[in-house]
Amino acid sequence: MVDATESQPMHRVVIVGGGFGGLYTAKALGRAPVDVTLIDKRNFHLFQPLLYQVATGTLSPADISSPLRGILNSSKNTQVLMDEVTNLDTQKQTVTLKGEELAYDTLVVATGVSHHYFGNDHWKQTAPGLKTIEDALEMRRRIFMAFEAAEKESDLEKRRAWLTFVVVGGGPTGVELAGAIAELAFKTLKSDFRNIDTTEAQVLLLEGLDRILPPYPPELSAKAEASLTRLGVTVETSVLVTNIDGNIVTVKRDGQEEYIPAHTVLWAAGVKASAMGQVLAERTGATLDRVGRVMVEPDLSLATHPNIFIIGDLANFPHQGDRPLPGVAPVAMQEGEYVAKLIKQRLVGQTLAPFVYQDFGSLAVIGQNEAVVDLGFVRFDGLLAWFLWVFAHIYFLIEFDNKLIVLLQWGWNYFTRKRGARIITGEGLLNDESLYEAPLNDRAPVKV
Amino acid sequence: MVDATESQPMHRVVIVGGGFGGLYTAKALGRAPVDVTLIDKRNFHLFQPLLYQVATGTLSPADISSPLRGILNSSKNTQVLMDEVTNLDTQKQTVTLKGEELAYDTLVVATGVSHHYFGNDHWKQTAPGLKTIEDALEMRRRIFMAFEAAEKESDLEKRRAWLTFVVVGGGPTGVELAGAIAELAFKTLKSDFRNIDTTEAQVLLLEGLDRILPPYPPELSAKAEASLTRLGVTVETSVLVTNIDGNIVTVKRDGQEEYIPAHTVLWAAGVKASAMGQVLAERTGATLDRVGRVMVEPDLSLATHPNIFIIGDLANFPHQGDRPLPGVAPVAMQEGEYVAKLIKQRLVGQTLAPFVYQDFGSLAVIGQNEAVVDLGFVRFDGLLAWFLWVFAHIYFLIEFDNKLIVLLQWGWNYFTRKRGARIITGEGLLNDESLYEAPLNDRAPVKV
Repeated sequence: MVDATESQPMHRVVIVGGGFGGLYTAKALGRAPVDVTLIDKRNFHLFQPLLYQVATGTLSPADISSPLRGILNSSKNTQVLMDEVTNLDTQKQTVTLKGEELAYDTLVVATGVSHHYFGNDHWKQTAPGLKTIEDALEMRRRIFMAFEAAEKESDLEKRRAWLTFVVVGGGPTGVELAGAIAELAFKTLKSDFRNIDTTEAQVLLLEGLDRILPPYPPELSAKAEASLTRLGVTVETSVLVTNIDGNIVTVKRDGQEEYIPAHTVLWAAGVKASAMGQVLAERTGATLDRVGRVMVEPDLSLATHPNIFIIGDLANFPHQGDRPLPGVAPVAMQEGEYVAKLIKQRLVGQTLAPFVYQDFGSLAVIGQNEAVVDLGFVRFDGLLAWFLWVFAHIYFLIEFDNKLIVLLQWGWNYFTRKRGARIITGEGLLNDESLYEAPLNDRAPVKV
Repeated sequence: MVDATESQPMHRVVIVGGGFGGLYTAKALGRAPVDVTLIDKRNFHLFQPLLYQVATGTLSPADISSPLRGILNSSKNTQVLMDEVTNLDTQKQTVTLKGEELAYDTLVVATGVSHHYFGNDHWKQTAPGLKTIEDALEMRRRIFMAFEAAEKESDLEKRRAWLTFVVVGGGPTGVELAGAIAELAFKTLKSDFRNIDTTEAQVLLLEGLDRILPPYPPELSAKAEASLTRLGVTVETSVLVTNIDGNIVTVKRDGQEEYIPAHTVLWAAGVKASAMGQVLAERTGATLDRVGRVMVEPDLSLATHPNIFIIGDLANFPHQGDRPLPGVAPVAMQEGEYVAKLIKQRLVGQTLAPFVYQDFGSLAVIGQNEAVVDLGFVRFDGLLAWFLWVFAHIYFLIEFDNKLIVLLQWGWNYFTRKRGARIITGEGLLNDESLYEAPLNDRAPVKV
């Protein structure tokens, strides 16, 4: 006699995206009586909050990446596929991979967001954003090549443009990048060059609103600005970037246009939903918000398709507070765990109360020994905030992959002020013509 | 009155190449009364002996790279230039950089070697070699993508081709690569996949001569072959690769052609001199050997130009033993130190006895706990050899940059058998059509 439970096919959960949302869903389903398939374009989970440390030469890509197969290899019900989902059929309940289709009973979409240039996609070439390992290595290449080019440049004005670093966007990523570049220029690289004085570099942080870290309480924004200024960063608020063109950043302040000659422009200003948002809108009738994120029900599903969940940065969850939940790792993790729990409840004919995000506070790091923390009931900055930031990040890194090595690397950097990963990689580095002939734009530079 | 020593311009030493030879020359001249310029295409020194560990996912590029500026920043007489030397003028005593010229009084050329495909340069696309960080990341990408592709392939024959890894060349690099891939397939990745059994992978090490590690004593070659076989590597000697074409490696054994279907082919078979060899031949009349290396005098200079020295892998030093000195790091280091000393001696009107290489022995690692060592007076293998190998490499790594982190990473891998750096990076990974349609060549595969 055949066991009835064996003859019944397992409930198939397909998870698209191996970021915090997708991975936490998969982890929480590891012992459940379901068939799990996790699909990601990459073979690793990326610990994005530390990506700026790869961009600025402190950590290596592998330090903040964990192979998805490694993390999930003890979940025998879970299959990892390195592939890309390009479409979906809600009738047949299948997702389209490169060249094949995969059936689901429950679908969890957690494909996140990418950079948003507000209609100026051509800025991307000049001002890379920071979402992937490749983005981070490109930023690293540009930052360190700028110092190399300045060292070779005898024209003072051109040299100044090589030594000007513009970070667009005063959110946590912009603050972290600007702080790290200032530490590089004013501390780490100070005695490494012979023709230039790296402490003459300018690091500009440009923010359109009237203060940096807009989601934080104003007093922490002020503290962050003061800390950045102490590090040597020039913080400029209420200033709009209207053009990024070759070596000139055009900004508008009080209606007045100004030109900033700068070779290194880093984009930390905006995000838009990944392509799966559009696919979901077309195939399920899901509503998208202004930046393409998918509006979700209180249980993170789609109103029209209760077996499709959207979590993480791709979701707009409007049911808690005045604003959508922020696009940060803790939201994605909690959403992933919630959805896994709900799937398990449904299997036994139960349901779950709506999702509620538990906010344990916000952190942003500015530099060594400097961070700002908002725990809701208390706000503080300085060394203690920095230690809390280090602790929180190490805690999550170790949870995945025992990346004690990162702690040791940080400890080492902390005491030596060295940055071991400031190597420039990539093919044909010296073929970039802009390194040898860097004519500044004809429009006379005016300021900053 | 002006001090005579001040009015006299400093003796200018230009060093081309920041590998072991160039770097050791620069380090040894750090306190000398000379002006030193070290030129390299990259901004870092690469510890090449460990490059295979980057290729096979144990270490990150930055773990074995040290910024040249960082290493030399306390040598105030030394300038580092990230640039490429494309020509030289022995009359004016200048080297040509991208777009400028640089004068020397003494020139030290240490630009090393690159891969040699014995007239089959088109094999390069299919069978990458291992000289640069980018080479290592390309190998890493191919090795780990092959497992991913096999996991998706349902056709057994095609799957077998994805799980066949061919290493061409049985020297130390080939032995190290083959051993590391076997450890990946048979240990590290064993429980990571659901559709394939990684222990069914084939790792082939092909050597044209009748034994692997030809420069070593025959008994160590035999021991290395036995160790590799225990690890799961199929060692094939006296076999010539006659073609590498898409997914088929054609080999000739006893005059008989055989076809090996394999997607991953790694080249560790031969080297040829870098382009500077040809430039030197044309500009100085220097004699080149069969692979383009420059024949040097007993003091490492050119017969026609005593102020031009060639050191490291680019030099053919025929004055000691029956064969030229081997292309290994200790030779380059000792040559660099010798040349630095000779330059200092010449400044005070003295000279130096001819260069003599002090051979402290040879090492090759096969896998965890497995290495072979030849110290001249004693030869051994196994765990003790492996520890000696680890110690020797850590010793040199720490000398440059206190890369204790590598020791910790190794310790961690040793106890966990994990490989933290098995991430696949690069743009457009999933756009590689060969991953989805992998038609095997029409010629029927015959063997292995």
